[in-house]
Amino acid sequence: MTEDAPAAGAARPGGRTARTRAAVLDAVLGELEDAGYAGLTLDRVAERSRVHLATLYRRWRSVEGLVVDVLGEIATREVPIPDTGSLRDDLRALASEIAGLYARPRYRALVEGMVAAAVRSPEAAAALTEVFAERNRLAARIVERAAERGEVPPGTDAAAVVAAVGAPFYYRLLIMRGPVDDALAETAAAAAYAAALGGAFSPPGTQDP
Amino acid sequence: MTEDAPAAGAARPGGRTARTRAAVLDAVLGELEDAGYAGLTLDRVAERSRVHLATLYRRWRSVEGLVVDVLGEIATREVPIPDTGSLRDDLRALASEIAGLYARPRYRALVEGMVAAAVRSPEAAAALTEVFAERNRLAARIVERAAERGEVPPGTDAAAVVAAVGAPFYYRLLIMRGPVDDALAETAAAAAYAAALGGAFSPPGTQDP
Repeated sequence: MTEDAPAAGAARPGGRTARTRAAVLDAVLGELEDAGYAGLTLDRVAERSRVHLATLYRRWRSVEGLVVDVLGEIATREVPIPDTGSLRDDLRALASEIAGLYARPRYRALVEGMVAAAVRSPEAAAALTEVFAERNRLAARIVERAAERGEVPPGTDAAAVVAAVGAPFYYRLLIMRGPVDDALAETAAAAAYAAALGGAFSPPGTQDP
Repeated sequence: MTEDAPAAGAARPGGRTARTRAAVLDAVLGELEDAGYAGLTLDRVAERSRVHLATLYRRWRSVEGLVVDVLGEIATREVPIPDTGSLRDDLRALASEIAGLYARPRYRALVEGMVAAAVRSPEAAAALTEVFAERNRLAARIVERAAERGEVPPGTDAAAVVAAVGAPFYYRLLIMRGPVDDALAETAAAAAYAAALGGAFSPPGTQDP
């Protein structure tokens, strides 16, 4: 146990508060890796992070508060958006990034935990949706660039194409509860690409024959 | 409160046990409609179904046990699998059925609850996966018939096509937490159809040009 929470307003970037938060969020990911969301408790995070249990209660209040903060932290990191010059390859690279993320048990447990928390907590639901909306907004640039190159039918809904790449992963993770692998990534990217070219995400009558 | 659980082996189809179960499962769906999974408790189900709380504890043990049983019951009902003679229309009809189901708050809450329960309980996870695998197996007939008619490339993975129709709904429900509507159904069906014809679900080199 290293320190206690500072008073409101005492947070300094890179200071003790930031170090405490980094230690706690690392500990959360470590616990998710080892025991999954079902095994995540404030007690175990306190032990692993060496931060006082009282501090965890005061700053994060619950396991849900912790996973919301971890997800937000991960989302603020620079996420490389592919830009290969071809929609097909960009979607393939995007799908491969998603597959790489969820091949790691800690991130699989994190998204499972967030989805479960969102069912019970409006705050967790809002955090989950906000993080995905922001990431999808960034990834939509892939499709916007393809539209500028004339690769997709006019009026193609960029957000829908990006959602189509992601959806099969969450179906696999949350519903079928199977492995996320390269084959899934390949199929997800190829399906979204073919559907975009076929006009499934654009107004009727705009697709190329 | 109408009755107690019978001893093991005393269950008779259509008898008291079946009536108790039907009353309880109806009450679970009613509570899901009114209060969502977050508001579901054995106490409230007991009150609504007029079945003893002790009976609920003995037969279902927990809220998770109840939602697993409800999902299994719904899955055993006859699910019409579209057979219009055209893959495009069959997928559209399938997507429309899914949209109709999740437009009802009770079924939306049921799947949310099952997914949340699956994160914490291996039994719930197994039940969830089993129900979806069985429904997808039935729906795969749509694609198998299309293959017999030569509508899709040789070797098309029927289960993958069916999963592609469903995945956008669960992404919308669980991740983006937005409304399930006809526009989503139309896009999901059109995307799966275009992707199937484009060879996204078949071995490389088999798609038609």
